[in-house]
Amino acid sequence: MTDTDAHGALQSTGRQTMKEVLGDAYVAKRDASTTPLNQALRHLSEEFPYATLWTRDVITRRERSMVTIGMLVAMSQHHELRGHLVGALNNGCTPAEIAEVITHACAYAGFPAAIAAMRTAEEVLREVGAAP
Amino acid sequence: MTDTDAHGALQSTGRQTMKEVLGDAYVAKRDASTTPLNQALRHLSEEFPYATLWTRDVITRRERSMVTIGMLVAMSQHHELRGHLVGALNNGCTPAEIAEVITHACAYAGFPAAIAAMRTAEEVLREVGAAP
Amino acid sequence: MTDTDAHGALQSTGRQTMKEVLGDAYVAKRDASTTPLNQALRHLSEEFPYATLWTRDVITRRERSMVTIGMLVAMSQHHELRGHLVGALNNGCTPAEIAEVITHACAYAGFPAAIAAMRTAEEVLREVGAAP
Amino acid sequence: MTDTDAHGALQSTGRQTMKEVLGDAYVAKRDASTTPLNQALRHLSEEFPYATLWTRDVITRRERSMVTIGMLVAMSQHHELRGHLVGALNNGCTPAEIAEVITHACAYAGFPAAIAAMRTAEEVLREVGAAP
Amino acid sequence: MTDTDAHGALQSTGRQTMKEVLGDAYVAKRDASTTPLNQALRHLSEEFPYATLWTRDVITRRERSMVTIGMLVAMSQHHELRGHLVGALNNGCTPAEIAEVITHACAYAGFPAAIAAMRTAEEVLREVGAAP
Amino acid sequence: MTDTDAHGALQSTGRQTMKEVLGDAYVAKRDASTTPLNQALRHLSEEFPYATLWTRDVITRRERSMVTIGMLVAMSQHHELRGHLVGALNNGCTPAEIAEVITHACAYAGFPAAIAAMRTAEEVLREVGAAP
Repeated sequence: MTDTDAHGALQSTGRQTMKEVLGDAYVAKRDASTTPLNQALRHLSEEFPYATLWTRDVITRRERSMVTIGMLVAMSQHHELRGHLVGALNNGCTPAEIAEVITHACAYAGFPAAIAAMRTAEEVLREVGAAP
Repeated sequence: MTDTDAHGALQSTGRQTMKEVLGDAYVAKRDASTTPLNQALRHLSEEFPYATLWTRDVITRRERSMVTIGMLVAMSQHHELRGHLVGALNNGCTPAEIAEVITHACAYAGFPAAIAAMRTAEEVLREVGAAP
Repeated sequence: MTDTDAHGALQSTGRQTMKEVLGDAYVAKRDASTTPLNQALRHLSEEFPYATLWTRDVITRRERSMVTIGMLVAMSQHHELRGHLVGALNNGCTPAEIAEVITHACAYAGFPAAIAAMRTAEEVLREVGAAP
Repeated sequence: MTDTDAHGALQSTGRQTMKEVLGDAYVAKRDASTTPLNQALRHLSEEFPYATLWTRDVITRRERSMVTIGMLVAMSQHHELRGHLVGALNNGCTPAEIAEVITHACAYAGFPAAIAAMRTAEEVLREVGAAP
Repeated sequence: MTDTDAHGALQSTGRQTMKEVLGDAYVAKRDASTTPLNQALRHLSEEFPYATLWTRDVITRRERSMVTIGMLVAMSQHHELRGHLVGALNNGCTPAEIAEVITHACAYAGFPAAIAAMRTAEEVLREVGAAP
Repeated sequence: MTDTDAHGALQSTGRQTMKEVLGDAYVAKRDASTTPLNQALRHLSEEFPYATLWTRDVITRRERSMVTIGMLVAMSQHHELRGHLVGALNNGCTPAEIAEVITHACAYAGFPAAIAAMRTAEEVLREVGAAP
């Protein structure tokens, strides 16, 4: 097998996992905005986090979502956080559990990071009809 | 009740929780190195993360440990990571689960953050006799 | 006293300090947007930075505001910066002193962090009628 | 020569370099928005990165642009990134090379930083008519 | 082809590239310290940055090294920086060019990040006999 | 005046200020370790933060030291922090004020950043005989 075949196989697995985690609608919208500039990065995102990390079973997808949100809050990566908030709901996290992870961040990443992330979370949960 | 009483009550709760999460030996060693300079910060650490966050039950302590490690890896806070690796074992995480959280970070915080954290984890797990 | 009482006492102190630093209007607007998701984080913000740090007198509130702005600029936490710019004015910093702290950041946190923070500062100072 | 003369000489050199890297229109727009608050920071930006770093010839300006973009992506400094994307085009980088630097960041700074930067790059390249 | 085959193919390519960039001795030493805990992360490092990014030819390996060093300096990832300093020499960067990239960082990531990275660079370049 | 003269004038001013802030011994030790690799970065450090920022009088040097320490703690730049802790003492900050700035960081940058910085501060203050 060539490396091209290997990349193709992993992209296919990754796209399937991405649909499970982020939803069919997300992947369809993503495909519609793929361009020559972002294509390589998007293929890598399929092959690598989605085919290779989210398919591993040492921890559950629900736990992986909680950990991912914790990391994104700590780094103040709000755009990526939006997608993974929806992914966390799909993976079985409740809104209260998501809010708890963000609240926990205030002691480790500081209040500014936690407060800004909570604003994003409230916005996203309202958008998808999951705010309590 | 005065604020002084309130701080005292939370410090007492926090010290108990800290013993459960990080161990009696850790807290004894910490007490022995308390100085006029670091005392206020240490009281705050008892009152706030330990009395107030680690006592909440929306997520389990095992999950909270995984999330905390995820945040510390994302921010490359290696000194704090050392303590929370031991805390994670005490809270029921296996070494394989800890390594999985750190591995997961490579896609979200980048390989340099994940690789440096894995080195710290291997060192700490060997020290406490928990390396597989 | 129970921990619940302790938390209540500190929340009360913290809300008073928050009004002194950020203003009554800020706290009223904040209360109006409290939800089940953000409530725990907001209580913690009252108890901890406001009841416990901003009430300490080792440095003045004016100095504490300068230090806080320095930290927020260094971490590029722009949402939190907005509130603390108003707090700095309330605590006696002049617009020129605020601009000086942000300018100073260019050597320590880099020009991108300083320039983006200065844009936020100009916007906020114009909004509250304090731009020179 | 006084320090005031020295600052003046470097500001003059820096403004010339800034025009070469970021364009006359950028500098004219910048001048029109200079205020008492941001003036000191802007003079420093002229003297220091533009008079002092971008005039050095150990690496080419094209290489310096690639390195600058790499740093800004790694730190998620999107406002500054916008200006330096235009600068990179002026310094001879192709859109494909810019996208490659951003794609490369996914392994070192993580996917969230790379993906958010790619969105900014696509926006800016479309605005200036350089998107492939 | 199964995903297992795909991962195997990319690991093989990645290990070859890693030998070219970081040297046979580095890879041999790395293999000798692979453990059950770090194995998954190391396979990912082979497959992903080395098989997938360092094999792309839109920019040269010398340019990729300069960009990588820029990113690592901006994030203060000193352990990873050590390896990539050697990689940069292998990819054709001169010590003066490496020092220039680090010097450039003072304006974008701040002096503390640049100065600490320069110390690491001087140490590594002396160790490998490449200091001027 | 040429730019070379301008750089020379500012380096001279900066070296004088650096001696006032960090001490003659620090500057002598620094000079003894200047190399072809770090020379450009060191000249820039003299010209820019020391000749240009630390000579400005909008805020006092004591206040500037507190703000600088706040920024360095928030970014976990421990090597640079060591020097500026000594500078803060020289500029009139007491050990208790320095500890207060670091303690304050726990709410804004998180406990891990504050705790690691406090360890550095205790070490440095002991070394220079200023620990209470």
